Amino acid sequence: MKLNKENIIKNLQLVQEQSPLVHNITNYVVMNNTANALLAVGASPVMAHAIEEMEAMVAIAGTLVINIGTLDAQWVEGMLAAGKAANKKGIPIILDPVGAGATPFRTKTCWEIIETCNPTIIRGNSSEIMALVNEGIQTKGVDSTMASDDAVTGAKELAKKTNSIVVISGATDYITDGTTTYTIENGHPLMPKVTGLGCTASALCGAFSVIENNTLEACTSAMAIMGIAGELAAEKATGPGTLQLHFLDALYSITAKEVSDLYKA
Amino acid sequence: MKLNKENIIKNLQLVQEQSPLVHNITNYVVMNNTANALLAVGASPVMAHAIEEMEAMVAIAGTLVINIGTLDAQWVEGMLAAGKAANKKGIPIILDPVGAGATPFRTKTCWEIIETCNPTIIRGNSSEIMALVNEGIQTKGVDSTMASDDAVTGAKELAKKTNSIVVISGATDYITDGTTTYTIENGHPLMPKVTGLGCTASALCGAFSVIENNTLEACTSAMAIMGIAGELAAEKATGPGTLQLHFLDALYSITAKEVSDLYKA
Amino acid sequence: MKLNKENIIKNLQLVQEQSPLVHNITNYVVMNNTANALLAVGASPVMAHAIEEMEAMVAIAGTLVINIGTLDAQWVEGMLAAGKAANKKGIPIILDPVGAGATPFRTKTCWEIIETCNPTIIRGNSSEIMALVNEGIQTKGVDSTMASDDAVTGAKELAKKTNSIVVISGATDYITDGTTTYTIENGHPLMPKVTGLGCTASALCGAFSVIENNTLEACTSAMAIMGIAGELAAEKATGPGTLQLHFLDALYSITAKEVSDLYKA
Repeated sequence: MKLNKENIIKNLQLVQEQSPLVHNITNYVVMNNTANALLAVGASPVMAHAIEEMEAMVAIAGTLVINIGTLDAQWVEGMLAAGKAANKKGIPIILDPVGAGATPFRTKTCWEIIETCNPTIIRGNSSEIMALVNEGIQTKGVDSTMASDDAVTGAKELAKKTNSIVVISGATDYITDGTTTYTIENGHPLMPKVTGLGCTASALCGAFSVIENNTLEACTSAMAIMGIAGELAAEKATGPGTLQLHFLDALYSITAKEVSDLYKA
Repeated sequence: MKLNKENIIKNLQLVQEQSPLVHNITNYVVMNNTANALLAVGASPVMAHAIEEMEAMVAIAGTLVINIGTLDAQWVEGMLAAGKAANKKGIPIILDPVGAGATPFRTKTCWEIIETCNPTIIRGNSSEIMALVNEGIQTKGVDSTMASDDAVTGAKELAKKTNSIVVISGATDYITDGTTTYTIENGHPLMPKVTGLGCTASALCGAFSVIENNTLEACTSAMAIMGIAGELAAEKATGPGTLQLHFLDALYSITAKEVSDLYKA
Repeated sequence: MKLNKENIIKNLQLVQEQSPLVHNITNYVVMNNTANALLAVGASPVMAHAIEEMEAMVAIAGTLVINIGTLDAQWVEGMLAAGKAANKKGIPIILDPVGAGATPFRTKTCWEIIETCNPTIIRGNSSEIMALVNEGIQTKGVDSTMASDDAVTGAKELAKKTNSIVVISGATDYITDGTTTYTIENGHPLMPKVTGLGCTASALCGAFSVIENNTLEACTSAMAIMGIAGELAAEKATGPGTLQLHFLDALYSITAKEVSDLYKA
């Protein structure tokens, strides 16, 4: 399915106007980029993981992003505590299952988070999503080894099983609640060469889910903005290093007209 | 009050000549940027938090920067141990109370550090400074929701109470010992859109406080260099992503003439 | 000695073709850059430190990079567990002794890793290498205070003692097994002004050691690619900030002709 471009533009403007506070428990690799991307798109990021402040931080946040990219036992405790607080408060939780399938510890932790915290959104690459669908799958580290198209059936199954919106990012992005599935055809082949743009996508899904109650449309809007900003950045970049910076600039200055002209679904 | 531009230029040159070693216990989000900014301005950064090496690291450092941006109980232990060692050695300590007021854990930890370590300098945005002045205040995450002008009286009070130099960064920067207050009018509106430039400011205050015994002038010099580098960077940047990089380039190549021409107080 | 440029070009192409999975237990400051550099050169990075997944992560990795830049007791446990697993599996281990000599904790930890894990490669700046050769040496933080030339004899000694390839990076890079020593004259004076390019060099040595069994040649190839990419980046950069990004772009797009034209040994 295709979301109206007017919805995407409206949602972007709502993020810019309301500047939702996004509480991230995320990995060390991407913290800087994720914070900068949230600021650029108009949201307000906070990074916090200590169990001592999980309830208090969730209390002021609009959404909670849990990303297991560099997890350890102590951080998982913080994730679970924050997730429970977010559930109680009723704010959206986004799970980014980085490297699910690479080690049993990652896959097991994802399921622990899913069962304890009932995430509203699960966003991963196709390998990660399939590792959650079929726990026997072995993935190669954190990079996808599968086309996003091959994980669509699995994503729908996972969405139904977990009662969440599942987002697969890839050449085509798929956003599904198990019944309705939106696609996004924006993006650029250089994007997977920048570490952590998937993590950024998860954080943007979080920001958009604060201002748009229809979570399926919130995620679709976020993924469209990601892809369009990536295309705008790629026009100016000479490689993955400069792409990363131009991507932030594009997120910051993206216009309704650019969304309107470039959106492909 | 206004500091003579000659002092700022002299202090910048002293940092470049003496390359003070700045020991940072700082947050995950900004470690890379802070290290790069210290290198660019001519200082030598080291990041270390393990309690096992706090005394030994402080023993070779010229200053200690404590930044609670992504604190947890274990790191706070390291901060307190390092702070005590820095006190004993008599080197300046800078406290950056990131997100003070956002959670009780952050506010409480700041006061524990203030009482245990007697920081020489406290640098924050206006929300953070006011959260230390009045513990009842609730801030929104780590971004300021208050103009810097509104926190000046509180900053003076905090400076007197803690016997430290208090620095508020914002559209106008204020640097006060409670009696004398310097202002800096440099900077650019795009700077708050880059995560952690406040943390960079704290680290630069640290570096300058090693080479200038008058800590009030050291911090004023550091804040002026921050603001001028931000303006130089904004001329070349097309958004917050490129600003971050051009800011490092500007810090690295800033000239006495640029300081002289651009300094506004 | 001088390695044939054909070998360097061949090794670069093998990394691009085989995309080896590099498991990094590295410091917070450089995680983003290291991951991006590995992606840019064609490898696949994963960052993981939790003891719960060390065996499983090593089981899918082609090499293990241990970097002690922001070590603490808990991380050292993970490093040792991963090192043992890597030994058992027989994959190359790279030790980056960041700040060895700055504190006894760092020097002691390096030796514990060397004795427990038998690293295949040790890469550091001259101060760090000398601190391992002579434990009495006190270094200044993490920046080198010594020319690379002055550490060559020590490096050879360390290589023989530890039965590893020792790489000193500096104005001239030295790569030695204690008997044969290659040199690289590539690189740019701006490179030490970017934090963590040494850590990137260690990670690239790791990637190249997966696809080239002759570890001495693997490291020499990696160091040549580092230096050449640095020179290409410096042509476009206006300071250390932009250098960092152009360096990633250069790593991504470096051609056989550029290697052939620029390689200096």
